[in-house]
Amino acid sequence: MVDSETSGGEASTGAARRIYEALRAQILEGTYGPRDRLPSTRALAAELGVSRTTVTAAYEQLLSEGYLESRQGARSRVALLRDQEADRPVKEERSKATPEPAGAARLSRFGAMLGGGPAWVPPVSPGLVADFRYGDLSAADFPTEPWRRAVNTALRRRRQRLAYDDPGGSAALRAALQAYLWRARGLRSDPGQIIIVNGSQQGLDLAARVLVDPGDRVAMEDPGYVMARRVFAAAGADVVPIAVDEEGLRTELIDGLVDARLAYVTPSHQFPLGSVLSARRRQALLHWSRSTGAYVIEDDYDGEYRYDIQPIPPLQTMAHADNVIYLGTISKSLSPMLRLGYLVVPPSLYPAFAAAKQLVDRHSPVLEQEALAAMISSGAYERHIRRSRRNNGRRREALLGALKAELGDAVTISGADAGLHVVVWFERLDKAEEGALIARARGAGIGLYPVSPLYAAADAGHRPDRAGVVMGYAGLDAAEIGKGVAALAALLRSPGTEGARA
Amino acid sequence: MVDSETSGGEASTGAARRIYEALRAQILEGTYGPRDRLPSTRALAAELGVSRTTVTAAYEQLLSEGYLESRQGARSRVALLRDQEADRPVKEERSKATPEPAGAARLSRFGAMLGGGPAWVPPVSPGLVADFRYGDLSAADFPTEPWRRAVNTALRRRRQRLAYDDPGGSAALRAALQAYLWRARGLRSDPGQIIIVNGSQQGLDLAARVLVDPGDRVAMEDPGYVMARRVFAAAGADVVPIAVDEEGLRTELIDGLVDARLAYVTPSHQFPLGSVLSARRRQALLHWSRSTGAYVIEDDYDGEYRYDIQPIPPLQTMAHADNVIYLGTISKSLSPMLRLGYLVVPPSLYPAFAAAKQLVDRHSPVLEQEALAAMISSGAYERHIRRSRRNNGRRREALLGALKAELGDAVTISGADAGLHVVVWFERLDKAEEGALIARARGAGIGLYPVSPLYAAADAGHRPDRAGVVMGYAGLDAAEIGKGVAALAALLRSPGTEGARA
Repeated sequence: MVDSETSGGEASTGAARRIYEALRAQILEGTYGPRDRLPSTRALAAELGVSRTTVTAAYEQLLSEGYLESRQGARSRVALLRDQEADRPVKEERSKATPEPAGAARLSRFGAMLGGGPAWVPPVSPGLVADFRYGDLSAADFPTEPWRRAVNTALRRRRQRLAYDDPGGSAALRAALQAYLWRARGLRSDPGQIIIVNGSQQGLDLAARVLVDPGDRVAMEDPGYVMARRVFAAAGADVVPIAVDEEGLRTELIDGLVDARLAYVTPSHQFPLGSVLSARRRQALLHWSRSTGAYVIEDDYDGEYRYDIQPIPPLQTMAHADNVIYLGTISKSLSPMLRLGYLVVPPSLYPAFAAAKQLVDRHSPVLEQEALAAMISSGAYERHIRRSRRNNGRRREALLGALKAELGDAVTISGADAGLHVVVWFERLDKAEEGALIARARGAGIGLYPVSPLYAAADAGHRPDRAGVVMGYAGLDAAEIGKGVAALAALLRSPGTEGARA
Repeated sequence: MVDSETSGGEASTGAARRIYEALRAQILEGTYGPRDRLPSTRALAAELGVSRTTVTAAYEQLLSEGYLESRQGARSRVALLRDQEADRPVKEERSKATPEPAGAARLSRFGAMLGGGPAWVPPVSPGLVADFRYGDLSAADFPTEPWRRAVNTALRRRRQRLAYDDPGGSAALRAALQAYLWRARGLRSDPGQIIIVNGSQQGLDLAARVLVDPGDRVAMEDPGYVMARRVFAAAGADVVPIAVDEEGLRTELIDGLVDARLAYVTPSHQFPLGSVLSARRRQALLHWSRSTGAYVIEDDYDGEYRYDIQPIPPLQTMAHADNVIYLGTISKSLSPMLRLGYLVVPPSLYPAFAAAKQLVDRHSPVLEQEALAAMISSGAYERHIRRSRRNNGRRREALLGALKAELGDAVTISGADAGLHVVVWFERLDKAEEGALIARARGAGIGLYPVSPLYAAADAGHRPDRAGVVMGYAGLDAAEIGKGVAALAALLRSPGTEGARA
C-alpha cells in the first residue's frame, strides 16, 4: 500500500487503486469492522506520503461500491455488509494467511526442542463450576486503585529524556526491594546484587544461560516446577531429579553429585508437595554447595503466604550461603500478568547476570518498576499482601473444610501450611486413573490439574501410587470452592469411577 | 530478622534484639533515610509474625539510643544523625556488601563471554550543553496523557482472573498491530504470525536462540548495530561482516555465503549510515535467502521517520519473502523505556518462537500491551507518530542547518533522509583522531559517539579513514542542537585539535 513510485497522474491512479484494494481487503477480513471509522483522508494521505486527492479517490470508489458509508461532515464508516457477500471473501482471505505446518522451519537445536509450540493453556471457559488452576489469582484481589495511582505517579515523574535504563533495573525499585526483603524475609542484600527480571521465569532462564553449559548436571527437586525443568533441559543440561519428602529435598541423595553446576530448590514451600526444608538439610545443602562449587537457586515463589506457621527464613539468610541465588516474584502477591520478579545474586555473579539481562532485553519496563517501587515505599504493597493473605486464608479454609466434609478419608492433603495450592491424593484411586479422573472432572465443570507431570519422566520409585491433583485456590471465591468440591465428591460417588479401590 | 524460634519471654527478647539490630543497621546504611517513617509497630509485628510488644521493645531501644524520633500519636521517624556518627558505620556496613571481583564466579561459556558486565552508560549529567546520544528521545514528546488514559482503560478492564497470557502476546495488541502494519507499512500478516517481545532486543535474542547453533554463520551489515552483533556472537555464531554502500548491503558479497543460517539487515534505513537497500539488491537478498534457506531479519527500527523521501516498503512485503522475519519496536515511536516490540515471523516459525518466548519469560506485560493496543485502535498512536515526526523533522533541520552554517565542508553527512540520527564524517580529521575528538567534545559539554565500534573488528578496508560520529537528535530541542554544534565548531577551530589535516 505504500508507494514509492508515485510521481504523476498515472502513478497516482495506481496509488489510489492500491489504497482502494488494501482497504477493501481489510474491510472484508474484518480489520475494519462494521461502523468502524476509517482514518481521515488527510491523516491517511500524510501517513502514506501521497496526496489527499489520491486517498479521496480510493474512498470514493469504496463508497460507490457500498463498502463505506458517509454522512455529511463525518468521517467515512464501514458499511454493514450483507452476510452472503461478506462471508465468502473473509474465508478466502483468511485461509491464505493460515499458518502452514512447521515442517519447513530450519531451527537451532534449542529451537527444534521447542518446535512443538508453547505449552500454554488459555483461560478456561467461564462455564466451569470451579477451576482449580494453580498460578491464577482472583482479579478481585488486585489493588487496582493503588496500582493506578502508582503508575500515574511514575508517569508524572519529570524526566529530561527517555533513554535505556540500567540493565539491573530501576534504582528506586532495587532500593525498595532491598528494604522490603529485609523487613519481610530477613534477607540482607545490597541493591547492587538485585536484578529486576520479567517474572521468575526470566530469572531461571538467565541463571541457566549464565551458569549452565550443555551437558552440565543440574539437580532438581522431584516432583518439582515443570517450567524450571524445561528451562534447564533447553539449556542442554542433564537434569538430575532428587526426591523430596516431608523435610524437603533429600539432601543425602545429592551428596554424591559432585559435578553439578546448579541445584534448584523451593525451601520455604516445596513445589508442589509443600514441605519445608528442615534446618539440618539446609545446612547439608549449603555444605554441598560450598564443597562442590555448585550454585543453589532458591525459588521463594510464594513466601508471602503462610498460615498456621512461623515465617520461614530464606536459605540466603544463613551462614555459608555464598553460592545461593535468591529468586522472588510478584506473580503471587500482585499479578502474574505484570511480569516482574527479582534475583538477588552473589556479588561475583552480578556483572554476568546484568550483562545477560542487557543482551536479552536491555532491562525490564521502567514505568511498572517505578510503580512497584512506589507501592512498596508507601507501604501499600505490604498492606495489600496482608489483605491478600487474609483472603487466601479464607479460601484455604473453605477448601480444607470442604475436602474434609465432602471427601473425608478418601483423600490425603499435602502442603496446606503455606502457599496458594494443596496437593490432594485420592486414596482409593490408582495413579493410572489420574488422567481419567481429571477428564471426568472437566466434564462435570471442575478444572483439576494432575500431579504426574511434575515428576521427572524416569520415576525413581518415590512417586505415590495414587492419583493426585494440584488444587490452586487463589483464583476462586469460597462459594465456588465449595461447589467445586461438592461436584468432585458427587463425581467420586457416582458409578462412573471405575476401578476405585476398596 | 524473621524468627522461627520465638516461643516465650527469653525468645521474644531475642526477637526484639534482632529487630533492633536489623533496623539500626538499615538506618545506618541509609535504607531508611533521615525523617523516613518506620512501619507501624502493628504492621511490622504482623509482617514478622511476632507480637507487637516485641516490635515496640525494639523501637523503644532505637528511640532511647537516638536513632528514632517520636511525636505524640505519630509513627516513629528516623532521626537526623550527626555526621560524624553516621559516616563511620555507613562505610563499614557498605564495604561488606561491595561486590567482590568476578574472579570467583563459575560461569557458562555464554556467561564468561558476558562476565565483564553490561555495556550500559548511565544518562549523562544534565551539565552537558548537548548530548547527541543515539536512541534517546525527548521526554517532552511522550504522549503522557493519552498513555495514561490507555493504561487506565486497560486497568479497568473487567477480568475474572489474573492468569498467564498467550506467549505470543495480547490478542488485542496483535490485532491492532496487524492493522497498523498494513496501514503504515503495507505489511500483510496474520495476527497468528505476530509475537510481542520486550523491545527489538528480545526479538533479536529469540531469533538467535531459535535459529542459530554455535558455529553457524550469520551475515551482518558492516557497519551495523552493535547489540545485534553481540547477540549473535553470544549465541556462538560466526558473524560475517558484509560491507554496505549507498545502496545498502552489498549483496554481491553475500552471494558466496552459502552456509549462513541468518542475515541481519536494516533495509529501510541502514544503521548507522542511512542508505536504503535498493530494489535490485532487495531482490538479490531474497534470492540468496531462498536459494540457501537462510532467514533474513529485517530490523525496521525507525520506519516511522522519513522526511524528504517516500516511505520505503519493507522487504517482508515483497514476493519471495518467505524467509523474512520482520522486527519492529516502539522504542523510537513512543519510548525505549516501555520495552515493547514485535516480530512478524513466517508461519512455520511461529510455534518455536512462541515456545521460546514462553520459556524465556512467559509473555510480555499485559497491561502495557493492552494500553498500546488501545492507543493504536483509537488512532492516538498514529496521531502521536505524526506529531513526533514533525518534531523530529524540526530537530533534523536545526541539526543540518547548524552543521552547514558552522562546519560547512569540514564535514560530510550520511543518512539524513530518515530516522533520528545522522553520521557526520570530519573531512580533516583522521580516524585515529576520533577518540581524542570525542574526549575533547565531552570536555566542552558535547556528547558525541564514535562510529568506529559499529564496524566489525576485522576492518575489511571499507571503513572511511576519517573520524566519524553518530549524532542522535531526538533527545534535544532545536536550541540545544544549535548550541552543541556551535560548541563543536569552536572546538574544531581551537588550536587543541592537533593533527588536523590541511
